[in-house]
Amino acid sequence: MSNPTAAMVVIGDEILSGRTQDKNMHHLAGELTAKGISLREARVVSDDHDAIVATVRDLSATYAHVFTSGGIGPTHDDITADAIAAAFGVSIDVRDDARALLKAHYESSGKELNAARLRMARIPDGATLIENPVSTAPGFTLHNVHVMAGVPSVFRAMVASVLPTLTGGAPLLSESLQVQRPESELAGPLGQAADAYPDLSFGSYPFIRDGVFGANLVVRGTDASRLAEAVAHLRTAFPDAA
Amino acid sequence: MSNPTAAMVVIGDEILSGRTQDKNMHHLAGELTAKGISLREARVVSDDHDAIVATVRDLSATYAHVFTSGGIGPTHDDITADAIAAAFGVSIDVRDDARALLKAHYESSGKELNAARLRMARIPDGATLIENPVSTAPGFTLHNVHVMAGVPSVFRAMVASVLPTLTGGAPLLSESLQVQRPESELAGPLGQAADAYPDLSFGSYPFIRDGVFGANLVVRGTDASRLAEAVAHLRTAFPDAA
Repeated sequence: MSNPTAAMVVIGDEILSGRTQDKNMHHLAGELTAKGISLREARVVSDDHDAIVATVRDLSATYAHVFTSGGIGPTHDDITADAIAAAFGVSIDVRDDARALLKAHYESSGKELNAARLRMARIPDGATLIENPVSTAPGFTLHNVHVMAGVPSVFRAMVASVLPTLTGGAPLLSESLQVQRPESELAGPLGQAADAYPDLSFGSYPFIRDGVFGANLVVRGTDASRLAEAVAHLRTAFPDAA
Repeated sequence: MSNPTAAMVVIGDEILSGRTQDKNMHHLAGELTAKGISLREARVVSDDHDAIVATVRDLSATYAHVFTSGGIGPTHDDITADAIAAAFGVSIDVRDDARALLKAHYESSGKELNAARLRMARIPDGATLIENPVSTAPGFTLHNVHVMAGVPSVFRAMVASVLPTLTGGAPLLSESLQVQRPESELAGPLGQAADAYPDLSFGSYPFIRDGVFGANLVVRGTDASRLAEAVAHLRTAFPDAA
């Protein structure tokens, strides 16, 4: 596949402690797949400067795009923007355009642009702002790293702001069949199908529902007619598939 | 903190494509926190041999424990066991004890131990089996890597099998307060509290609910009385907290 590649970094102790369940990864994964950008890896790291710096450096050197969520708010534990600046060796300070956005927003609601709020205008040198139609404080793109908020509604809005600016590839299409039999009875014919269509990817995702073992068989590829052919092949092999 | 450290590896294209939302990370995170093992990082990687090998090598050298989920079933895309063997440079084959478990299980339900099922008895040399009370096919521990299934009910059962065999630390305790005000109004006093209790960790997790901005303030530490003191401090700073 020649689609652009991507990785995600979820930043937050609250995910690693089990306090909160991340929802942003699943959202981004679906959006990238539809856009034809191939999400190859995702990492959850703690609110730790060195961990964020090392992870962002590693992933931005490996993949075409890196998307981060979390840690760009006004509190002492919001350290993502500084870590991104450090990862690329650029300086960071309150930037006029970001300050102007926040000033207008808080003035319109009769609030003061206090020190905490001004912290959200700290933007690494050379970054482009990502619009935040939900709560104004912007995200930013620096080189190939897109830095977004952790609050799911804000994250989604920022993803919607940034994705149209990126070049995608052929959308990855998928078709699935469900078979109410254990995987171990499907493995042989499924492996043969995978060998017969080496240009497609075949996955088997088992489940247990009400004590019944079954599997979702998923075929992925970018060519709709090849996909239809492979699905017909699977339906012949598994006439009981739903 | 001197608690043992851990990382998790979620293996599966279905998560990265956005088809499925991972639930195992959240479960493991909660269990490890209760056990006093500190989950420092989690990674989602694709069903790719080299990616799994590199990730497992990296994490097993860095953390006291690594937990993996996914890719140990009977189908062609279940490649985790071979990748773990490769990561540690050991050989892998069908092992008698694992084969005996599967044989007894399938015989009791009048089924044959076919080639696909036998694949689930492939265990790297030197590994210890992890019991699977849900569907028999075992997980395994090799060095500090605990390899478990991706199906959530099986993953949970395997976590319950393996965690009692590990040495934990002081459970990480947490207390939280909810304030129905934007983070930017809380940041000052919260930062002062974090400075006043450097032995504890203070997090602020913003939310937007029905258009109202608020934040959950979470204090974490291993000493219950210090935690209570810090919470009292926050309640004084935020008398409107719930």
